Amino acid sequence: MKIEVIPFFTAINKKSVKDKTVVVIDVLRATSVMITALENGVKEIIPCQTIEEAKQIAKKLHPDSFLLCGERNAKKINNFDLGNSPLEYKSELVKDKIIILTTTNGTKALNKCIEAKEVLVGAFLNTITIVEKIKRLNEVVLVCSGTNGKFSLDDGICAAMIMHELSKTKTIIPDDLGYVLMKTYRNSRGDLKPLLKDCYHLNYLLSQGYIEDVEYCLQTNIIENVPVFIQGQGLVN
Amino acid sequence: MKIEVIPFFTAINKKSVKDKTVVVIDVLRATSVMITALENGVKEIIPCQTIEEAKQIAKKLHPDSFLLCGERNAKKINNFDLGNSPLEYKSELVKDKIIILTTTNGTKALNKCIEAKEVLVGAFLNTITIVEKIKRLNEVVLVCSGTNGKFSLDDGICAAMIMHELSKTKTIIPDDLGYVLMKTYRNSRGDLKPLLKDCYHLNYLLSQGYIEDVEYCLQTNIIENVPVFIQGQGLVN
Repeated sequence: MKIEVIPFFTAINKKSVKDKTVVVIDVLRATSVMITALENGVKEIIPCQTIEEAKQIAKKLHPDSFLLCGERNAKKINNFDLGNSPLEYKSELVKDKIIILTTTNGTKALNKCIEAKEVLVGAFLNTITIVEKIKRLNEVVLVCSGTNGKFSLDDGICAAMIMHELSKTKTIIPDDLGYVLMKTYRNSRGDLKPLLKDCYHLNYLLSQGYIEDVEYCLQTNIIENVPVFIQGQGLVN
Repeated sequence: MKIEVIPFFTAINKKSVKDKTVVVIDVLRATSVMITALENGVKEIIPCQTIEEAKQIAKKLHPDSFLLCGERNAKKINNFDLGNSPLEYKSELVKDKIIILTTTNGTKALNKCIEAKEVLVGAFLNTITIVEKIKRLNEVVLVCSGTNGKFSLDDGICAAMIMHELSKTKTIIPDDLGYVLMKTYRNSRGDLKPLLKDCYHLNYLLSQGYIEDVEYCLQTNIIENVPVFIQGQGLVN
């Protein structure tokens, strides 16, 4: 199985994802939010690239049908209903709602993958289910969303965990970035916390008080759903 | 010392290099060629982005003063004097000549760094001298040229070696990519060959018969010069 790892969303180009199965990863926190929200009964998630785009979509929907959600600089956007903390997306609040979501990296990454054959949403929360879904393919692209156009270790190690699990059942051929990430993951024996202790974005979130969010997002395999991004329909389970 | 590592040249943006000291790395083989050629007495190297640009520059120079050099798909360009093998750049052939050079990644990487304060050229051949040159700075950007818009492990491990050597004399703060590369390098205890055995581009070069080139480029610290790229003047020692 050929595996390509893209280090951050601004590096996605049409050629690298066209007609392929892509897994978009933004562990801290956008894809962890998406997986959690859909697990908790959200009807669909519409990922938007800009705040303006999110507001325009909101105008077309019945006021009771949606929640306007997202972050800039890790903080909830002014006058929006929810931010980018997966812990906010409780069932009693989000069940059967449409989530209009705009984040700095993850929702942009998804929108850059529209030419892919299939776009799946991954994080530590659902790694094993991702692996189950893709393990019969001959090729996959793992998109690390990154942070503001830079590689983020949390996403990279999630990609490494996916590759490591895949390698238990089949021969994988990762690209050079995939190779180095998998080597790092294996040397750490899968112990995420010490491995990620120097991760820039993780430490930024901790400095902003998002300690519970980080704890939550580093849990592995607690959710069995894999959201799928269908152009024109948004994200569904 | 803050260290940013850029994974491939297409990811260089003005903001990330502006007014900074940048080390451009293309181990296999462009920066190894540049370091070798200047060591062997070349007057200057003019790095060009396209074959056409190289030919235009050649027209303006005295026919005896220059050599037209470079590769596409690792092979010497038709009707050019030399290709991209450092072993071709022998003193008796290149001494006092101007080298007009165009390669797939390295010369493009250099030209994307024109807004930097200082652009140095690094490879395994001159790692220790690079470290000597930059060790008093507070910040440096290591540009891995990569291969066709993808990360290449040879460049990444050269960046890791530079970081590792720097860390012997001062505290370094690498970004997430730098961190993962340095960890990989340290786990390998600096043994380059097993570490690079799965490197895609290295294996491509071997498959094309460039075995001696690869052997040569993986030698560490055999040259004490660091080429500097000065806009409007080209590369000089």
